[in-house]
Amino acid sequence: MKILIKNCSIITMVRPDDVYSVGQIEIEEDSITYVGTVRETGQSFDRVIDGSGMTALPGLINGHTHTAMSLMRGYGDDIPLMKWLKERIWPVEEGLTGKDVYWGAMLSIAEMLKSGTTAFADMYFFMDEVARAASEAGIRADLSIGMVSITGDWQERLDSGRRFFRDWNGGAGGRINVSLGPHAPYTCAPEFLGKVSGLAGELGAKIHIHLSETLDEVRQIKEKYGKTPFEYARDAGVLGHKVIGAHCVHLTDDDMQIMREYGVNAVHNPESNMKLASGIAPVQTMLDMGINVALGTDSSCSNNNLDMISEMRSAALLQKVGLMDAEALPAVKALEMATRNSAKALGLDDRVGILKEGMRADIILVDMNKPHLYPQHDLISNLVYAANSGDVAYTIIDGKVLVDKGCLTGIDEERVFFEVDNSLKRLFNR
Amino acid sequence: MKILIKNCSIITMVRPDDVYSVGQIEIEEDSITYVGTVRETGQSFDRVIDGSGMTALPGLINGHTHTAMSLMRGYGDDIPLMKWLKERIWPVEEGLTGKDVYWGAMLSIAEMLKSGTTAFADMYFFMDEVARAASEAGIRADLSIGMVSITGDWQERLDSGRRFFRDWNGGAGGRINVSLGPHAPYTCAPEFLGKVSGLAGELGAKIHIHLSETLDEVRQIKEKYGKTPFEYARDAGVLGHKVIGAHCVHLTDDDMQIMREYGVNAVHNPESNMKLASGIAPVQTMLDMGINVALGTDSSCSNNNLDMISEMRSAALLQKVGLMDAEALPAVKALEMATRNSAKALGLDDRVGILKEGMRADIILVDMNKPHLYPQHDLISNLVYAANSGDVAYTIIDGKVLVDKGCLTGIDEERVFFEVDNSLKRLFNR
Repeated sequence: MKILIKNCSIITMVRPDDVYSVGQIEIEEDSITYVGTVRETGQSFDRVIDGSGMTALPGLINGHTHTAMSLMRGYGDDIPLMKWLKERIWPVEEGLTGKDVYWGAMLSIAEMLKSGTTAFADMYFFMDEVARAASEAGIRADLSIGMVSITGDWQERLDSGRRFFRDWNGGAGGRINVSLGPHAPYTCAPEFLGKVSGLAGELGAKIHIHLSETLDEVRQIKEKYGKTPFEYARDAGVLGHKVIGAHCVHLTDDDMQIMREYGVNAVHNPESNMKLASGIAPVQTMLDMGINVALGTDSSCSNNNLDMISEMRSAALLQKVGLMDAEALPAVKALEMATRNSAKALGLDDRVGILKEGMRADIILVDMNKPHLYPQHDLISNLVYAANSGDVAYTIIDGKVLVDKGCLTGIDEERVFFEVDNSLKRLFNR
Repeated sequence: MKILIKNCSIITMVRPDDVYSVGQIEIEEDSITYVGTVRETGQSFDRVIDGSGMTALPGLINGHTHTAMSLMRGYGDDIPLMKWLKERIWPVEEGLTGKDVYWGAMLSIAEMLKSGTTAFADMYFFMDEVARAASEAGIRADLSIGMVSITGDWQERLDSGRRFFRDWNGGAGGRINVSLGPHAPYTCAPEFLGKVSGLAGELGAKIHIHLSETLDEVRQIKEKYGKTPFEYARDAGVLGHKVIGAHCVHLTDDDMQIMREYGVNAVHNPESNMKLASGIAPVQTMLDMGINVALGTDSSCSNNNLDMISEMRSAALLQKVGLMDAEALPAVKALEMATRNSAKALGLDDRVGILKEGMRADIILVDMNKPHLYPQHDLISNLVYAANSGDVAYTIIDGKVLVDKGCLTGIDEERVFFEVDNSLKRLFNR
């Protein structure tokens, strides 16, 4: 399959200023074969997309979420974290089946594809079902089983992690990778984290973990171990591996030195951090120190969507007001976080995150021909500060057009709603 | 013209919990004649809208903006306020003609209608052109000429304000009202504010003014007059009239007492306050004190859109993280700010801001049948935390359908783009 996208503006993200006002992109099978100014190729193509009035950019990469939780979108907002978990989320989660998780994940994948997200990092349970959904839907994913040591059998947990890694890492034609998912310092004992780290070394797996999300977590770990969560994770061996560190809100200078030294990838989740009143992560400081900061949405329960365009805007706006500095985290940096930085966090920067010959064809087209995106003094500004997920017209992954003129090509949306309703009826006794 | 909207869910905003999961709305001419459960009327209608899968709510009201500035959307972001004004905005504004302002306003009105905004409060210059655009487009507006006393002829300014009020207040069949628009404490001398206040008394006009937006403003007024901006405005006589007070970010306890005592309407502009690093307004505190807090976007230059759905979300999220309290400003309060509180600020609460028999038919329908708005555990949560402006399917003002299945019925969008381009070519020497 050869695809030509013509007459679109292009934000390549190869360099911040690498923008074409009118350009074209050529795709062959799963890869980009040309990105540049309009040219006469003399070739034939199986599909031609007229990108007039549209902007092409690398697909957005959601560095941290829990896709199946979309089943509980809006089920208990505006209440404190522990009350919300104990009275709302955990009782529902106890009743979840693999089928529920499959359809919850599929609902989220439908949302992500339509909003221009081409890859995501997920942590939850019944992860084989999420892998199956991602595999069928054509999206790229980095999946991990969330593991805690405060209840249950450690060995069983580790065995599941190993089994899931062997079953799915590199699966779906390389679209699916697997990380190990020890949940967080406050739910995983040091000995357990040590065992997870050993397993990561054995498998060559990344570790996806929540780190320093709330002041409460920092206080707990300090009281129990006399360490910050980052010192705790380091001492347990976690940071010796490739780490996707979700949140990283409350950090000491020493924590950030540790992050730099060990090459930890931070995933910033600004809307979740705002909604749950977790705090403002020192994103600009981390970036200035050379730490890789990716972007994620967290789940639909604490956001309440998986919209990476809105998340970029929130990231930039929150840094500015947090630092009282209008120059903090400019639009292009927020876009870098959502593309190349997230690609790096997921270990995918050899294939996605920028538009360039030889990279995989993970491309989105945003329709700029709309009043709220007019005029176009600055494409990146319009994208980050003015666009919304409804403006995504095309989403292409591995050269396959999965969203075409705003519509899903491979997911039966009505059936997803129907099956989600079936799950909800049982879960919520409706 | 009689319109029936059937099978929609309805958020009336009469009371916070006044929500119908399946209901219908009947409209006759410019007014609502029925809101409630589905019923058999036996009547005939000129238009029937199937609202299945959609949520009806009062049109959103943008309490503070500068519509014509959409011409400069994205022209200079991520730089400090004074540098941005001096090097970007003011040089362009010097070249603006009435025609530019007309098309800039029309571009913004197109955006507002499509994103569910049915009324707005505007402050700028060449305001007759904005009035003409609003009149033609069918939107509701409260318009004011921005006035400063630091340059130019005071009497000329006051005369323009009086003339504009007489020409347009109550215009376009009552859709347009006029306020007096002294810009801000730091651009208006006390004597000038006194004269504006006198004129407001003479005309019975509201006053639309920026108040306590930045720390710099507070410092300036303190140094020059030994007062806070609110004390300064009070002492100049401004607060003796109905006041639309934009921003209200940096407030003392005494300021808030003054606001309550004088019934000042605060307009919160969270995205602008974040983007310009102005600060976090004490919205929850003001609401707790019984101060009316409306919601606005400010201009497309400091936002960079006029999307009131996104603004509601930002308002709620910003209060939570600012106060480190997940319970602060719940979704329904943010929606109140954007509907009934904004209606009150604009002096329109006798006719819009809630859906109820006898009120004007300013209604929007949001299409919830989308992956990012599924499931619907809580309609208001979905609307505030998960929806985006692309989800608005219908916008009705005074019983006229101005957005129909997402498309503008009365504005030629392509022509607006064309005329905006003509303006831009001249203004930016392109």
